[in-house]
Amino acid sequence: MSEKITLGHGSGGKLTERLINEVFKPHIHSSALDEADDAAVVTLGKERLVTTTDGFTVRPLFFPGGDIGKLAVCGTVNDLVVCGAVPRYLTAGFIIEEGFEMKKLSKIVESFSQECQRAGVEVVAADTKVVERGKGDGVFITVTGIGSLSPGPIPGAGLIAEGDVVIVSGEIGDHGAAIVLARGELNIQADISSDCASLNDLVLPLLEQSPEAVKFMRDATRGGVATVLNEVSSKSGHNVLLVEDDMPVKPAVDGLCEMLGMSPWYLANEGTIVLIVAKAAAPSVLKKLRSHALGKNAAMIGEICEATGDQPRVYLQTRSRGKRILDSLVSDQLPRIC
Amino acid sequence: MSEKITLGHGSGGKLTERLINEVFKPHIHSSALDEADDAAVVTLGKERLVTTTDGFTVRPLFFPGGDIGKLAVCGTVNDLVVCGAVPRYLTAGFIIEEGFEMKKLSKIVESFSQECQRAGVEVVAADTKVVERGKGDGVFITVTGIGSLSPGPIPGAGLIAEGDVVIVSGEIGDHGAAIVLARGELNIQADISSDCASLNDLVLPLLEQSPEAVKFMRDATRGGVATVLNEVSSKSGHNVLLVEDDMPVKPAVDGLCEMLGMSPWYLANEGTIVLIVAKAAAPSVLKKLRSHALGKNAAMIGEICEATGDQPRVYLQTRSRGKRILDSLVSDQLPRIC
Repeated sequence: MSEKITLGHGSGGKLTERLINEVFKPHIHSSALDEADDAAVVTLGKERLVTTTDGFTVRPLFFPGGDIGKLAVCGTVNDLVVCGAVPRYLTAGFIIEEGFEMKKLSKIVESFSQECQRAGVEVVAADTKVVERGKGDGVFITVTGIGSLSPGPIPGAGLIAEGDVVIVSGEIGDHGAAIVLARGELNIQADISSDCASLNDLVLPLLEQSPEAVKFMRDATRGGVATVLNEVSSKSGHNVLLVEDDMPVKPAVDGLCEMLGMSPWYLANEGTIVLIVAKAAAPSVLKKLRSHALGKNAAMIGEICEATGDQPRVYLQTRSRGKRILDSLVSDQLPRIC
Repeated sequence: MSEKITLGHGSGGKLTERLINEVFKPHIHSSALDEADDAAVVTLGKERLVTTTDGFTVRPLFFPGGDIGKLAVCGTVNDLVVCGAVPRYLTAGFIIEEGFEMKKLSKIVESFSQECQRAGVEVVAADTKVVERGKGDGVFITVTGIGSLSPGPIPGAGLIAEGDVVIVSGEIGDHGAAIVLARGELNIQADISSDCASLNDLVLPLLEQSPEAVKFMRDATRGGVATVLNEVSSKSGHNVLLVEDDMPVKPAVDGLCEMLGMSPWYLANEGTIVLIVAKAAAPSVLKKLRSHALGKNAAMIGEICEATGDQPRVYLQTRSRGKRILDSLVSDQLPRIC
């Protein structure tokens, strides 16, 4: 492993995995952490609760469709709901750079708070720290979420079986594409907004309707849908076969990717999740998703197959009818996407 | 209020209070936050739990007596125990600067983990983000702690009454003084280590022994003992009268303060707490504290009196037998102390 931290170590891809495995895991022994899910189920007395933490360092702080305040809430809430938890409480730690404009901070706090109200979560603890100019970048926010868990099965990769289908809840890549454009480093105009949204109302009713059929859910943030499905493949021991023609993607996002040599499969999403669902339940799950504004573009994009080679893989049947491996990223297309 | 964030806004003093009141509170409505305690009591089903969050941005990252990893655990654990909670779970968000040495990160994670083991808490969720060189400062860690609360009274400023006494659990100012020296900007040699320690074993047995007598506890971090006691005064509506001669302080810390024009009352502590205790129970509380290695220098330093002027105040009877107001800091003696 390299001796210094690189931006790639923050990508959510293979380098991040190595950082975790080589620097964190040798010291921190925790069954909850070993699961390497986005959220952990723990018990407190008679209650099961789910907790998750995420640092938000997105650049720029404001972008079409949201800002770091809204993003921090959505990202945390979504990590809880994909575990089947009802989001209840948030804590927030703000690390602010000296010289940052108070008005911008106020706007960010307002967005943060508005999204909390939308998602029905209460902020119960907060902290602010200030670092010298040039030792931070405007604002970083670290949010921890606590949710409550009903009795019943918890979706997880262990439930996935051959024949299950892969669904995405909406068009993919909007957040990543919106951030690329918002950085203003390219001379490109396109009408793309982040999909940044809290998904309680989309996801939790689905679990109520089909508690046994929904095997696994994950919000496809850093590293995109491809990275989530590589995790699915590796944890479940099955291949995943995707059909590129079935990928829901906005023409503007697809076009941007072509121009920049990127792929929507790897672009971050902040209001779009991947679901693995029992085949028989797929039509009803799709119908339920599509009945909600945030799921109206939900689509079935592939299926779970028997592993073939020496290790389980994600394969993509391309538009040209070829078949290629869709690997995890080693580093990232875009640092500081969330 | 100034239009830009200054280092003083991170001091924990009056400017921080204004930042919270003018930028955060107008947007975030939460009864738990309004309490402005270091930790919040929330309910989840039938369980009461306590949660707290803190960002750690200490500079330098390594100092005599600890490092940012150990500090992050102690700071969080202590925020829980002063509320009477048994610390159970931690989450940690690391924001790492590109180019940071992997070996140093590994050392920090090791300290973090060792302190978790000492304090009996489990790390259940973690996150790493990487920011570009010059957009961070080595490592920032934001930790959230979750503790469980036994049935029974929760210490709080509302319980404080005239005649109660003020106790500190040890010599004050060690952490602040150790950080000043560790920065290496002064040509001073002194043998001062941070008091950085998890206080479960010191504090929780005390609450078991004297659940009614211990009215209030607070770890005296940013802003020091003076800031905690100004909070006590303002929240309880009583004056606090301190006796400077009774202040336990290491000669080296006192000497450093004299040289630098600082006061130990305002220096941060990371393993020393302030207690407000019913007078009759003070001897047994002191005895119990002193029976523990981390409390062997515990001392009674003052008492709670009737408010006199137009607002409750903290007064200090100085070594020269004068009496002066010991106010909250407006800004800070030392930025980035924790």
